Amino acid sequence: MFTEAYTVIPKGTFRDIVTSFLPFWEQTRLWVIARPLSGFAETFSQYIMEVQPGGGSSRAELDPTAEGVLFVVGGEITVSLDGKSHILTEGGYAFLPPASGWTLRNQGSTTARFHWIRKAYEAVEGLEKPDPIFLNEKDVPPTPMPDTNGAWATTRFVDPNDLRHDMHVTIVTFEPGGVIPFAETHVMEHGLYVLEGKAVYRLNQDWVEVEAGDFMWLRAFCPQACYAGGPGKFRYLLYKDVNRHMKLSRL
Amino acid sequence: MFTEAYTVIPKGTFRDIVTSFLPFWEQTRLWVIARPLSGFAETFSQYIMEVQPGGGSSRAELDPTAEGVLFVVGGEITVSLDGKSHILTEGGYAFLPPASGWTLRNQGSTTARFHWIRKAYEAVEGLEKPDPIFLNEKDVPPTPMPDTNGAWATTRFVDPNDLRHDMHVTIVTFEPGGVIPFAETHVMEHGLYVLEGKAVYRLNQDWVEVEAGDFMWLRAFCPQACYAGGPGKFRYLLYKDVNRHMKLSRL
Amino acid sequence: MFTEAYTVIPKGTFRDIVTSFLPFWEQTRLWVIARPLSGFAETFSQYIMEVQPGGGSSRAELDPTAEGVLFVVGGEITVSLDGKSHILTEGGYAFLPPASGWTLRNQGSTTARFHWIRKAYEAVEGLEKPDPIFLNEKDVPPTPMPDTNGAWATTRFVDPNDLRHDMHVTIVTFEPGGVIPFAETHVMEHGLYVLEGKAVYRLNQDWVEVEAGDFMWLRAFCPQACYAGGPGKFRYLLYKDVNRHMKLSRL
Amino acid sequence: MFTEAYTVIPKGTFRDIVTSFLPFWEQTRLWVIARPLSGFAETFSQYIMEVQPGGGSSRAELDPTAEGVLFVVGGEITVSLDGKSHILTEGGYAFLPPASGWTLRNQGSTTARFHWIRKAYEAVEGLEKPDPIFLNEKDVPPTPMPDTNGAWATTRFVDPNDLRHDMHVTIVTFEPGGVIPFAETHVMEHGLYVLEGKAVYRLNQDWVEVEAGDFMWLRAFCPQACYAGGPGKFRYLLYKDVNRHMKLSRL
Amino acid sequence: MFTEAYTVIPKGTFRDIVTSFLPFWEQTRLWVIARPLSGFAETFSQYIMEVQPGGGSSRAELDPTAEGVLFVVGGEITVSLDGKSHILTEGGYAFLPPASGWTLRNQGSTTARFHWIRKAYEAVEGLEKPDPIFLNEKDVPPTPMPDTNGAWATTRFVDPNDLRHDMHVTIVTFEPGGVIPFAETHVMEHGLYVLEGKAVYRLNQDWVEVEAGDFMWLRAFCPQACYAGGPGKFRYLLYKDVNRHMKLSRL
Amino acid sequence: MFTEAYTVIPKGTFRDIVTSFLPFWEQTRLWVIARPLSGFAETFSQYIMEVQPGGGSSRAELDPTAEGVLFVVGGEITVSLDGKSHILTEGGYAFLPPASGWTLRNQGSTTARFHWIRKAYEAVEGLEKPDPIFLNEKDVPPTPMPDTNGAWATTRFVDPNDLRHDMHVTIVTFEPGGVIPFAETHVMEHGLYVLEGKAVYRLNQDWVEVEAGDFMWLRAFCPQACYAGGPGKFRYLLYKDVNRHMKLSRL
Amino acid sequence: MFTEAYTVIPKGTFRDIVTSFLPFWEQTRLWVIARPLSGFAETFSQYIMEVQPGGGSSRAELDPTAEGVLFVVGGEITVSLDGKSHILTEGGYAFLPPASGWTLRNQGSTTARFHWIRKAYEAVEGLEKPDPIFLNEKDVPPTPMPDTNGAWATTRFVDPNDLRHDMHVTIVTFEPGGVIPFAETHVMEHGLYVLEGKAVYRLNQDWVEVEAGDFMWLRAFCPQACYAGGPGKFRYLLYKDVNRHMKLSRL
Amino acid sequence: MFTEAYTVIPKGTFRDIVTSFLPFWEQTRLWVIARPLSGFAETFSQYIMEVQPGGGSSRAELDPTAEGVLFVVGGEITVSLDGKSHILTEGGYAFLPPASGWTLRNQGSTTARFHWIRKAYEAVEGLEKPDPIFLNEKDVPPTPMPDTNGAWATTRFVDPNDLRHDMHVTIVTFEPGGVIPFAETHVMEHGLYVLEGKAVYRLNQDWVEVEAGDFMWLRAFCPQACYAGGPGKFRYLLYKDVNRHMKLSRL
Repeated sequence: MFTEAYTVIPKGTFRDIVTSFLPFWEQTRLWVIARPLSGFAETFSQYIMEVQPGGGSSRAELDPTAEGVLFVVGGEITVSLDGKSHILTEGGYAFLPPASGWTLRNQGSTTARFHWIRKAYEAVEGLEKPDPIFLNEKDVPPTPMPDTNGAWATTRFVDPNDLRHDMHVTIVTFEPGGVIPFAETHVMEHGLYVLEGKAVYRLNQDWVEVEAGDFMWLRAFCPQACYAGGPGKFRYLLYKDVNRHMKLSRL
Repeated sequence: MFTEAYTVIPKGTFRDIVTSFLPFWEQTRLWVIARPLSGFAETFSQYIMEVQPGGGSSRAELDPTAEGVLFVVGGEITVSLDGKSHILTEGGYAFLPPASGWTLRNQGSTTARFHWIRKAYEAVEGLEKPDPIFLNEKDVPPTPMPDTNGAWATTRFVDPNDLRHDMHVTIVTFEPGGVIPFAETHVMEHGLYVLEGKAVYRLNQDWVEVEAGDFMWLRAFCPQACYAGGPGKFRYLLYKDVNRHMKLSRL
Repeated sequence: MFTEAYTVIPKGTFRDIVTSFLPFWEQTRLWVIARPLSGFAETFSQYIMEVQPGGGSSRAELDPTAEGVLFVVGGEITVSLDGKSHILTEGGYAFLPPASGWTLRNQGSTTARFHWIRKAYEAVEGLEKPDPIFLNEKDVPPTPMPDTNGAWATTRFVDPNDLRHDMHVTIVTFEPGGVIPFAETHVMEHGLYVLEGKAVYRLNQDWVEVEAGDFMWLRAFCPQACYAGGPGKFRYLLYKDVNRHMKLSRL
Repeated sequence: MFTEAYTVIPKGTFRDIVTSFLPFWEQTRLWVIARPLSGFAETFSQYIMEVQPGGGSSRAELDPTAEGVLFVVGGEITVSLDGKSHILTEGGYAFLPPASGWTLRNQGSTTARFHWIRKAYEAVEGLEKPDPIFLNEKDVPPTPMPDTNGAWATTRFVDPNDLRHDMHVTIVTFEPGGVIPFAETHVMEHGLYVLEGKAVYRLNQDWVEVEAGDFMWLRAFCPQACYAGGPGKFRYLLYKDVNRHMKLSRL
Repeated sequence: MFTEAYTVIPKGTFRDIVTSFLPFWEQTRLWVIARPLSGFAETFSQYIMEVQPGGGSSRAELDPTAEGVLFVVGGEITVSLDGKSHILTEGGYAFLPPASGWTLRNQGSTTARFHWIRKAYEAVEGLEKPDPIFLNEKDVPPTPMPDTNGAWATTRFVDPNDLRHDMHVTIVTFEPGGVIPFAETHVMEHGLYVLEGKAVYRLNQDWVEVEAGDFMWLRAFCPQACYAGGPGKFRYLLYKDVNRHMKLSRL
Repeated sequence: MFTEAYTVIPKGTFRDIVTSFLPFWEQTRLWVIARPLSGFAETFSQYIMEVQPGGGSSRAELDPTAEGVLFVVGGEITVSLDGKSHILTEGGYAFLPPASGWTLRNQGSTTARFHWIRKAYEAVEGLEKPDPIFLNEKDVPPTPMPDTNGAWATTRFVDPNDLRHDMHVTIVTFEPGGVIPFAETHVMEHGLYVLEGKAVYRLNQDWVEVEAGDFMWLRAFCPQACYAGGPGKFRYLLYKDVNRHMKLSRL
Repeated sequence: MFTEAYTVIPKGTFRDIVTSFLPFWEQTRLWVIARPLSGFAETFSQYIMEVQPGGGSSRAELDPTAEGVLFVVGGEITVSLDGKSHILTEGGYAFLPPASGWTLRNQGSTTARFHWIRKAYEAVEGLEKPDPIFLNEKDVPPTPMPDTNGAWATTRFVDPNDLRHDMHVTIVTFEPGGVIPFAETHVMEHGLYVLEGKAVYRLNQDWVEVEAGDFMWLRAFCPQACYAGGPGKFRYLLYKDVNRHMKLSRL
Repeated sequence: MFTEAYTVIPKGTFRDIVTSFLPFWEQTRLWVIARPLSGFAETFSQYIMEVQPGGGSSRAELDPTAEGVLFVVGGEITVSLDGKSHILTEGGYAFLPPASGWTLRNQGSTTARFHWIRKAYEAVEGLEKPDPIFLNEKDVPPTPMPDTNGAWATTRFVDPNDLRHDMHVTIVTFEPGGVIPFAETHVMEHGLYVLEGKAVYRLNQDWVEVEAGDFMWLRAFCPQACYAGGPGKFRYLLYKDVNRHMKLSRL
């Protein structure tokens, strides 16, 4: 479903016949679920990567301005950077600064699946480039939203006060019956990949039923709200762009 | 909101300036929230009655074919029938057979508010007219829906196997995150008055956010589904017509 | 504009080529702006009558169950009933009970224009038929709506406590900037003929700009709201059905 | 295309597989293009009849309240009534009063095609039933609409001042570029069968391109307008109901 | 999905919680998938019956004007009429004239499932009531539509020339890639229950994907077309009303 | 609500959870309510700034081509420029030329809230850069629109004849019942922040009810109109781009 | 009316309050009716200029890549170029190559009104820049479209075989009833200013009624068709871009 | 039909009056059916070329970054490159690398018609430019899609493992009843020109009937599905962009 303010890609479409391939990635295929589109979301691209054992890339990122976030949903990957290797398993998260020359290899015995979110880093004179980060969501306690009794919480991998970062990738978790109680409208663009559970999600003027495996993609200022259904939690991986002035010189 | 398959009347519209009055009802005003409309729901009428202390009626029902259900949401009413008086307080339910000559009086000291659902009783040769019923929802244990872990339950005032009845008025209760997991579509017409909580309710092709005090009114075959939001229960008073052949001779 | 919940007939359509004629009415033509339509408004019919000098009818109403209201917007008419004649000029109002055998003649020298609203009177055992009424709006002080500082007022020709009546025809007046502040939703059907000024009127889910000469016609339960524009007053002639139980036996 | 206010049946649908048959009509098939539908147009039915040589009916009309109009578009039919036979060829028109016992036979050598419009005659005490009429459009000069320079004209088969009639079937003709310059809105229901040419026709809020062989069917109060395209005339057969009070007792 | 011209009930909705019950039917539940609705399809009702072994009814039809068609989709039923018993297995068809006093019993060992289509028989003076019919679709060779190479065929249980019948229930079969090549528009109402396969079906202005178990329900004059997908046949049970004049006296 | 021609951000969405942060701004958070979006409004960005006592920035604007307007809605700010300090309180307005190196500090004791509108200044050879401006709306008499009796007026902070400016930020005021009487359509982009009162505002083909705290954002050529409701004034802060040729070289 | 494929600006919006001003133009105001919008029409800008006697500009065009077309609709202008002056009266047309340094003055005694269409000239290596052109439509015989009997004709100011030009501004004329008989869809962008008469114009999926003074603006590939109404001609000024390869390097 | 996610250009619009011309192409006209549009498909342009005998071009491609694919649908063309000539007849395919200086001439005796698809080649450091390819579809066996029994197959002119290529132009073939069984959604943009047969094609949320000669044009992420109708095959020429990272630096 493609609209002027949001797009929904249901899990049923992630089949063999719509995969893509990338130069210098071996034994790898991917689904591109977001890319900068003029007149829509313009700040990021998101891939679901599928790397076979032994596969990976020594020239993973070709764009020197691109920062990246990886989030593992299955199998195991080894990411190398500045001479150090980091093994990421399910729930593993990596922040990769621009021009860092990272490489990736599946040294496990099963297919590895992970999200790769890419953004052109927007440097600000007087701020340094952020450092690499390697974490696992298991090790990061979620922050409850105020006044929600813990029915709505956010797992943050980056310190919100660290303004060197211009994007946040977090995990949002709702308990059954948890709600976003008003139509949140803001300048941040969003990619939301549902990791678990189901909900009715409001996007602009519509309500859409989503479940684990679905992807929602929102333009800046697209209103959103949510009712999480049970019996289990409703969780999604969330991208947003933050901490920068709005660019002006577009004409 | 009035559509070809459903109507939603939000609580905000139940104000002083849109009340109605009825002959032979003293110190009483009402909001008519459903009435048979050709080309829409055609089987029942529903009033929200507001009777001041001392008010009521000795000629409550003027139509000899009409059966009625009362459900009290505030204050106290005394219903008399066949020489007996029944006091109904909050949660009180009465089934009043056609041509039963019942009367009603508010003998309490506060305003009484109750729902009155009226239907032309559809007699079947070989079945007797049903008996009067006086109950309170507190005394009726809800029946959980199968496979929902109790997240969805129905309070039934009438035995479902008693086919003398041609309408059911029940109370439906969802726990936070409880869902109607598919677009239920059936021949029964519905009136749904939300007693408590909030939810996103699917009506035909739309999703509508509803909360305590709202009324939904559904034509036969209008699809419906639901996601109940927390933090408390989501409960509504439900009308449906049942247990009869479809009438044919309409041309 | 014809929709499932309301119809708007703009003044521009009241031209010569769409007039109607009636048996036993001489030198008379009319525009039928409402009639009972199954699946829409079903309780009343409304005509804009145009009678030339000398014209009129001695068999004005052919249906013995029909009550009528006349409201004069131009010229002068003489209505006779029970042996008495009543001259009505601009702003003149008449209530004509069913089977009253009234006659009408334009004895003036200019074309007379008046609204004629017809309804099948719904008798109730124990209530008498209402009496004829002849008034002029100039002689009836408008009743201000509470909490509106007089920005919204209603001219009532019938005592609201007189439950013999089953229809009210009133004049509603807004000062500039007067509003109906919420989406009024109720069981009464409406015909609204704009007598003066302009406004944006909400009908169901739409907002429509209307001005003097336009007619709005609303099904039961069609939500409505209003913002009156200046510089003068915004006034309309309003029909609604009142004071009766809902009819049940429609199947 | 079926909407709440109008229906368009394009000529492409009049094929063999959607024909109907009638009792007591020999060697005859028909397309029913209008019938009373509750909640839509309710006053008339229209058939396109196709009678083979030798075919026809001695029990043509089974409903004793039904008046009829025939209009021939191909071949030749012989209509008998009151002991007289009338041969109708292309452009032939017949008005057949209710309960007149007419019969019809194709005594020609080619297939006969004609429209048959049926309506329940609405008798008025004090008015006689209208007489039969047999005419051909060739013999009836069209009446130009005022202020149109003859770009819009109507062929009338019935005297507009004869209020015994409660329906008019006419032929409307536009020259290239002829227009209905405003959204005509009135109480009359319409059937419009395009006999010749093409136009863009406004129906309610839509504009629809129509051409010879298409049928438009309008509910009461459906707005309409028209732009006739060239190079030839744009002509249609038009039904409307006229000259009666609106019926009230529908509840 | 409920629209002004058609309704689609997907198979997913035929679950336990939306069943109905009928007086005098033992061990039986049903889904009502069509009933006369004013302002929609008005001629027939259709049930999917589910009778347990030993169940059935001795007072099957309570309406003396109702004719019926049964079509078995699973298990076995025994229908008795005029002293004779008929066993119907999968594909079995029965036509039951009005007032015929038929009874039904599941004498098999598994649940029986069958369609029951009911219509008020429209008698015509001079035509006799039709006789009962008991057939199985296996014994009725389908009639191919002309010019379709057999890609579209109809199984007819009633002789099309027998005008005593006022309804036809047939089975329509498409081979993969078979199409209804234009938007068929006609006066007949339709119920279409998909027995096998899948297709994209055009209903009014929309295209809808349907598959075995879905039900489509069409108002008179609702346009329809079809593209049948493979790999197997696409088949549905079709109701239509036929062979009668249009009723006029609706006002 | 996000549409192709306009966006409405209701006041209810300005909550804690959707704030942004900026580098080099201390004790400050903001809501970005407009930014250049390709394929939408492209000329300006608008922030609602919230600065705590002691907060502010010495590197307020990082883009050397950006001009700015500040408008204070609560508290007090001190803006320094060219060695001079200007204290702005409620109603205070500042125009800040590009590359002017201004700084801002909240030296008051309460939270300061102000709008900050940013635009890339479009220099024209032969025109000088405009000078800084510091004003308060209290000191600027509104200019009534012609022929509106003062029901519609504009507070202008910049001389309309000074073509050095390429943006105007003004305050528009309507008395109750004041109207924009036609659908104004023009090339200027708009941001409208409602300061006071309520109205129904037409945006493209829709009418939207707005009140104090809501923000409307319009693409070039988006039609607009307005009906102001009472009882008080309806006022908004308005951005538009002016006085320049249209840029051509976009391909 | 602003849509994703076209925009209509009705004449009623060209009022005093929505005018623009340009640097170095004296006694001049203008309405900008088209400008390159990303994601819409991107190739041209169109102004309606209004120059008072004595007004005009010595720095008319500031963009050295811009070519221009002028078309006079009222009064008289003097355009100077390469040392020569050209007086243009109603119907006057000028093509002004890029970087030609033209000037304009109203030396007449009444207000001059003219269209100014601007485009960035797309040079092609091997083709020369086109020469200036000064003409009046009175001196250019229209070219009839084939097979239209002259009901549709085009006045061409530029030789269609001269591929140096990358835009055509022409006048299109329809006789009453003239039609564009199919939904023309092509890559050329359009501005259409109605000079005379009225029509129903199809734009994408809609039909819109337009008349003299209205402006239509079409994105590339927006389908269009037309029915011209009488009694006079329907004429418009038409812009389109032509004769170049499509630009590719947009990412 | 132009929508935010797809465009359909029906064959009926490819008429004489909407042709384009190109510099340096003799005796040639063309229809531009796709071009990069900001906010829509942005990667390619597609022409239908029509070259008369003797016509063609020695400066065929003016953009040095453009690669091209030709596909012949009628007549014969001679393409020269690197000193070699290749004759292409119906079904002929050519891949022309960027900056290859190819020329084209129609040396046949009939009009030649071919598709020309142009894209800016996206070079990757470390990958060579692809080589020219000249083939005919007759010589390329189609690859069946898995699990479709050959009902869906693709003719590939380029090795899918050759990542030098950044676009694929293929021929897709469906047997009658062949389906795309889910709503395929992916990042690749598409041009689909129907070569043969007919189908109902889903585009975003709509289903559209298409046949030989129609062109569909899809934005990235526009969902699609298909039901192929018989009696023959349904075939189309398909463009998609492949094998590259998503570009990021768009702000």
